[in-house]
Amino acid sequence: MSGAIEPDLDLGASLFEALSRATRHGRGIVRDSYGEGEQAAHDIVRSAALAIGLEVAVDAIGNLSMTLPGRERSAPRVIIGSHLDSVPQGGNFDGAAGVVAGLSVASAMRRAGMTPNFDVSVMAIRAEESAWFDIAYLGSGGALGLLDPACLAIARSDNGQSLEATLKQRGFDPQPIRERRRLLDPSRIRAYLELHIEQGPTLVARGLPAAVVTGIRGCKRFRNARCTGEYAHSGAVSRPYRHDAVAATVAFLHHMENVWLEQEEAGADLVLTSGELYTDPRMHGPSKIAGETRFVLDLRSLSDTTMDTVAAEARAAAARIGDAYRVNMALGATSDSPPAAMDTRLRSRLMRLLEHPFEMASGAGHDAAVFAKVGIPSAMIFVRNEHGSHNPEEAMSLDDFAVGTRALLGLIADFPL
Amino acid sequence: MSGAIEPDLDLGASLFEALSRATRHGRGIVRDSYGEGEQAAHDIVRSAALAIGLEVAVDAIGNLSMTLPGRERSAPRVIIGSHLDSVPQGGNFDGAAGVVAGLSVASAMRRAGMTPNFDVSVMAIRAEESAWFDIAYLGSGGALGLLDPACLAIARSDNGQSLEATLKQRGFDPQPIRERRRLLDPSRIRAYLELHIEQGPTLVARGLPAAVVTGIRGCKRFRNARCTGEYAHSGAVSRPYRHDAVAATVAFLHHMENVWLEQEEAGADLVLTSGELYTDPRMHGPSKIAGETRFVLDLRSLSDTTMDTVAAEARAAAARIGDAYRVNMALGATSDSPPAAMDTRLRSRLMRLLEHPFEMASGAGHDAAVFAKVGIPSAMIFVRNEHGSHNPEEAMSLDDFAVGTRALLGLIADFPL
Repeated sequence: MSGAIEPDLDLGASLFEALSRATRHGRGIVRDSYGEGEQAAHDIVRSAALAIGLEVAVDAIGNLSMTLPGRERSAPRVIIGSHLDSVPQGGNFDGAAGVVAGLSVASAMRRAGMTPNFDVSVMAIRAEESAWFDIAYLGSGGALGLLDPACLAIARSDNGQSLEATLKQRGFDPQPIRERRRLLDPSRIRAYLELHIEQGPTLVARGLPAAVVTGIRGCKRFRNARCTGEYAHSGAVSRPYRHDAVAATVAFLHHMENVWLEQEEAGADLVLTSGELYTDPRMHGPSKIAGETRFVLDLRSLSDTTMDTVAAEARAAAARIGDAYRVNMALGATSDSPPAAMDTRLRSRLMRLLEHPFEMASGAGHDAAVFAKVGIPSAMIFVRNEHGSHNPEEAMSLDDFAVGTRALLGLIADFPL
Repeated sequence: MSGAIEPDLDLGASLFEALSRATRHGRGIVRDSYGEGEQAAHDIVRSAALAIGLEVAVDAIGNLSMTLPGRERSAPRVIIGSHLDSVPQGGNFDGAAGVVAGLSVASAMRRAGMTPNFDVSVMAIRAEESAWFDIAYLGSGGALGLLDPACLAIARSDNGQSLEATLKQRGFDPQPIRERRRLLDPSRIRAYLELHIEQGPTLVARGLPAAVVTGIRGCKRFRNARCTGEYAHSGAVSRPYRHDAVAATVAFLHHMENVWLEQEEAGADLVLTSGELYTDPRMHGPSKIAGETRFVLDLRSLSDTTMDTVAAEARAAAARIGDAYRVNMALGATSDSPPAAMDTRLRSRLMRLLEHPFEMASGAGHDAAVFAKVGIPSAMIFVRNEHGSHNPEEAMSLDDFAVGTRALLGLIADFPL
């Protein structure tokens, strides 16, 4: 099985169009996890899969598998997957591009009469975004038995309905999550492949249509950091008597930026962000010294060691700077997700399939990280995308989509048994 | 006229008690400018003044004068004044202490049968706090013809009613403000004296009951500074492609703290505060790079030159750091109040009246600055106060109040014609 066949880009284009039409509300896309929008997207791709002649199955928690049967049905299969949900007022491509790419590949193979040696399943994964249930990877984590059953009590951010009630309402079954029971057997999966739009500007800046992902950065996040000083009159209190929460927080964050620079100079992979920082609007004032700030510090790296080192330095600096500014700086607990390395053999094959081979880390998390976590060889292709993701301005060209999807098809076509 | 008579501290204590009873809501004091709370306070001191036998008059915008007639009614008078309004949930002493001190002095002189050579007026000034109308010194500024008539359109922060409508509702007349017409003739005022609680911790830290004020710091405030970058995914965008508003703002404020340290080392009087700093709660997120911050930068100094120098450096640094971080940092216009020097002769007389003479700058603004601005010799006494001001925990002891009020009485008693 080989040959330079083209992915079914007409199918791809029509699917993007149908998804946009069905789930655009105002300027942006709304494919709410386990909601109307996500279900509409599932219905669209399911119909397309049936039209191509794929076998369709839905697991207990709603993940949709669309399978091109292989010669040897009992051999471990390849999954080409991604998610179909979006953030509120998101874009049309984050998630959906990976599922559409899978169907474009499967349709091309079907039309060319190519039967793979093993099953190739296109998987439309549920609820990857944390915007609706404040937990990421519900679909892939649930399928692989990794979810804490306590997640069933999480309320949807918009309507307050629990995950458990939401699953039941859609006709799905929360029992496997409660029992941490796997719906997929990792030993029966040869590889997990995911195409996704790049969520940063690197490919646009470099003028490249696609990239191979080296790994998915882990995250260590101080979600609830808080600096407590004392409110006082801005004019009436001289420096030695101040307990200025803003001054201390500024000194702390400035120090952490310097730590980042040092780590970068030493060659470490790291990004460091404080995306939320605020004084208390009920208490602050233009002529007041601030008595409190709250902030987030988000560390991401391909290396657990780097995150541990930087988090330890953050705690030490918070104590030191808190003392110096006579405030209490409490960083609080971190929420952690480990980094996930992509499979080196799959990476090098994908690199050979790109005209302009380029590798980069993924800063955002993806379902591929969940598959990699249970030992399934996983790989990702990034496709150039303007304006970032999670907003209505996501912009991926079909030409760039074709470059990434071609690499995916090339990998499947030449996949060793 | 001389002799070591004591201020009427019983009257003082009963007035503080009555004010607290009438205007405490929950833990704190609410004497809203031109509202119910301020009016209740005016009613209380007016009754006390009539009981003492003072002449009572209210000007067109509600300032209350309570006058102990002197031998020569046509001679320029001395005013002992302060304000009776408070911030929301403020303390019982900020402002009121100065009016109560004046009445304690007048009552003592009346009871001792002392007739001064000139009128001594205790003035309860309206609306000094900017918490309600977003403009300070409405009462004193209005009385001295200094207000911009545009202020009549300012809406009260809680009920949205304009200053003009509020004045009319209370039976006062906005016309003098519209015409910038003076209600007080500076040439008819010998001196303006104000006792006020210290709003910082200096006297507590030094173990002193009272201080003479050298001057009132001016203020140059960037009230609406704004840094605009671009929202993006915190993991997916590496440093060179970021437009991180928080990182830029942190770098800017950290730089300004270093400017402050340099100014201090060079002997300049300066305090520098950012009391409001926030990302946009509708847009920020723990896994986002912040696309916007808003903040206040408040500079105060006894020296106009120092404020100008530091403000110019702030603008230069905002441009420089904005470029470096690829964001737009717009500090916006400043709202300025000039520093006000206290009268040197009055200062030295007051110093001689204190057992432990000590002088210090006032970081907060006071009505005394407005009187000084039009050339009236002005002086202030600070009284020790714990926990700062503008909060329910203001704590001034009656013993310390007595020390300050005694100095006020001594100054009046020995005032040269």
